[in-house]
Amino acid sequence: MLYEAELLDAQVIENLENDDDAALKALINDQYAQDIADVLERLNTEAKFRVFELLESDLAAEVLDEAGIYTTRQLLTHLSTERIVDLLGRMPPDDVLEIIAEDVPQRRDELLEAMPTEIAQELRESLNFPPSSAGRLMTRKYLKLREDMTAFEALSQLRLVNSKVETANDFYVLDDTGHLIGVVSLRAVVNTPPNRRIHEFMERDLIYVTADTDQEEAARTLARYDFLALPVVNDDLKMLGIITVDDALDVLTRENTEDMMRLVGITTSEGDDEPYFTAPIFRVIRQRFVWLLLLFLADTFTGNVLRIFESELAQVVALSFYIPLLIGTGGNTGAQTVSTIIRGMAIQDIKPRDTFRVLRRELLNGLILGTLLGAVGGLRAYLWDQNLSLAVVIGVTLVVVCAWSNTIGSLIPLFAKRIGIDPAIVSAPLITTLVDATGLFIYLSIARLILGL
Amino acid sequence: MLYEAELLDAQVIENLENDDDAALKALINDQYAQDIADVLERLNTEAKFRVFELLESDLAAEVLDEAGIYTTRQLLTHLSTERIVDLLGRMPPDDVLEIIAEDVPQRRDELLEAMPTEIAQELRESLNFPPSSAGRLMTRKYLKLREDMTAFEALSQLRLVNSKVETANDFYVLDDTGHLIGVVSLRAVVNTPPNRRIHEFMERDLIYVTADTDQEEAARTLARYDFLALPVVNDDLKMLGIITVDDALDVLTRENTEDMMRLVGITTSEGDDEPYFTAPIFRVIRQRFVWLLLLFLADTFTGNVLRIFESELAQVVALSFYIPLLIGTGGNTGAQTVSTIIRGMAIQDIKPRDTFRVLRRELLNGLILGTLLGAVGGLRAYLWDQNLSLAVVIGVTLVVVCAWSNTIGSLIPLFAKRIGIDPAIVSAPLITTLVDATGLFIYLSIARLILGL
Repeated sequence: MLYEAELLDAQVIENLENDDDAALKALINDQYAQDIADVLERLNTEAKFRVFELLESDLAAEVLDEAGIYTTRQLLTHLSTERIVDLLGRMPPDDVLEIIAEDVPQRRDELLEAMPTEIAQELRESLNFPPSSAGRLMTRKYLKLREDMTAFEALSQLRLVNSKVETANDFYVLDDTGHLIGVVSLRAVVNTPPNRRIHEFMERDLIYVTADTDQEEAARTLARYDFLALPVVNDDLKMLGIITVDDALDVLTRENTEDMMRLVGITTSEGDDEPYFTAPIFRVIRQRFVWLLLLFLADTFTGNVLRIFESELAQVVALSFYIPLLIGTGGNTGAQTVSTIIRGMAIQDIKPRDTFRVLRRELLNGLILGTLLGAVGGLRAYLWDQNLSLAVVIGVTLVVVCAWSNTIGSLIPLFAKRIGIDPAIVSAPLITTLVDATGLFIYLSIARLILGL
Repeated sequence: MLYEAELLDAQVIENLENDDDAALKALINDQYAQDIADVLERLNTEAKFRVFELLESDLAAEVLDEAGIYTTRQLLTHLSTERIVDLLGRMPPDDVLEIIAEDVPQRRDELLEAMPTEIAQELRESLNFPPSSAGRLMTRKYLKLREDMTAFEALSQLRLVNSKVETANDFYVLDDTGHLIGVVSLRAVVNTPPNRRIHEFMERDLIYVTADTDQEEAARTLARYDFLALPVVNDDLKMLGIITVDDALDVLTRENTEDMMRLVGITTSEGDDEPYFTAPIFRVIRQRFVWLLLLFLADTFTGNVLRIFESELAQVVALSFYIPLLIGTGGNTGAQTVSTIIRGMAIQDIKPRDTFRVLRRELLNGLILGTLLGAVGGLRAYLWDQNLSLAVVIGVTLVVVCAWSNTIGSLIPLFAKRIGIDPAIVSAPLITTLVDATGLFIYLSIARLILGL
């Protein structure tokens, strides 16, 4: 059955209001962690803690893991160190890492101290990998085999380590020094005669990433090859761990959100995937204000361009009526281009060596679009103001502005990539604002030339 | 090893130029299908066919499946019906469905005729589900069990059907009438004593979707619960098939691209995920021109607003210098809001019942942002034009315009959802254009009032 958000919400609230802890406990412990996490987002702080306290420990750990960052922080601040260490011990190590490194960094050392030494040691090693690297996302628990084992031995191995590994769809074959030399699926092992040796049927043509690979790249590699898990190795190609498909899905969803938010000029920090309603309003304002102010200041230059052409505008008042139309069209064209290019680079359709092909293509696109819009715009201007010269100015300006904004819209993300900046940082409003000022300059220069002002 | 795109490209081209088919054949048949598909995108038509002909059939089928829609169409047009039927027989049925329904719909009936009757019958049934529904995405080959089977019998079952099923991480437990009653993982079956019966350890708390569920919703459900496969049932809850995680990943990537493109006003049809370079330029132009023209026509209204206030603009020329700044800020604010809301709805942070909460929150955001920007803008205007009344006009306008554009930016996608339109169709430029005209009207009305024009 699919979960009914409103129904579960209502049931939880009813039990809370009736102070019926027994019924509440029975209700929530029978749900999926994801669904309880959703309910928590809608409760006030006190109710949140009450519900959380009624969860059985394994489920509580899962809920802590699935909740939004704000709720996770609230819960972690509220709970005792002992309780947190117990809950973290029930979670996959990669999620523990995310919690101590990103959700409550201020309690990082205290929590590491209180954890079993071996686990704390592994976490400390993982913390040495850069944020947003594959090393931070991987789990170190996976199924290992030696190539001279039989299929029967492999299955016994699975029974032995079962509770310790997060996923168990593939076995990784390592040599004596820990290098990855092959992969076999659990399915293949079950399906082969029990005495067959692993090296006889393992896959040797391997795809993997190094621990310092960016998480987004690792996730796209996993998705590209339709894998359920992707091995992570160190620079000497020694096996370190695996990234699982559910984590890859989370990374891609988060990256897509980031790309979309940046595209319209909302600054997001890495890993910032706060749910809409629980994001504190002062942070939302800050994230939005930074860009708006920047664009605002840039837009005052647009006003300066107008001041430069003050006498032209005074001579032909009708020129000013076309300002919103021309800068609007330039901005819209540029926004289309920039998002096409950013998306193309994100899904690796466009590679760094493609710069010239992209520029040629977008310039051509801009000229064609500009010619089409220029014809419509020129005609519209003629019908409106009955002034042929002005109509020509509008038509020519549209051709030039579209070609220009398409070029700018592709050049800037390509250039950002070249100099090592994430191209998704380039927002459509930035392009729009650049095109506003330069487009007006182009427009009024063409007007001066053609109208002989 | 990770594949080196440029290296593989160069090797393929070298072999093509040397007419060394033996070396080319050895080279490409040792690659992953995804990598060969990428190489094909960069070759001309003739070279594409030559390389494809050298592929072994199983790999050729995979390449056909992984290639961009344009290349797939080229290959399918070029190949004989017999060859295509052979290749389709080597693909997962859900991918066959996509090819005959979307890639070459004109050859659909011919291909169905030529296929083995049983498969054609299944495909016809699947074609009855609406496009973009879970029914079109699912595979009908999955591992079935009865609840009274033992773990040992389950494993024998796996060996029996092995070659027919695409993924085999979970077994689905059906009752005598084909209803889904439980799920067990392969791992659990391997780990339990061989004589234990399935009903003793199967998971009974099931998550599934019906066949007419939208693919995006199904993919998000799978991702939400970290599943590797999601069961699809009919309205009577009879099991029909499963959706696998790799298909869910593809759906989410495609939906994200669509949302981003629509957000900046590029019309995309369902399932339109053409790679950047192979998309025919006339189609790209058409997709972009539709929106640009619409926005262009809407922007001419903005010009009309200016004409209404012609006398005010003539009296205080400085008013016109602030036009780009004010409409720019309104547009930027609105674009931020609309993308936040659309994204929030896509990842189900925002549900239909949240309309009022969203509106209240965005109105508050708009007022705060407007006050901050109004203070900066008013001060800037005073320093610039040394006119206190004008500075007040700019400041007040910014407050009102930001609140207004935030409201419009949240109202329109929420309203679209209410009346059953995909909210992602609402683009940032549409909001920007709406805010352009209305924002100017607000600005010049406030100016008229405060300056007493």
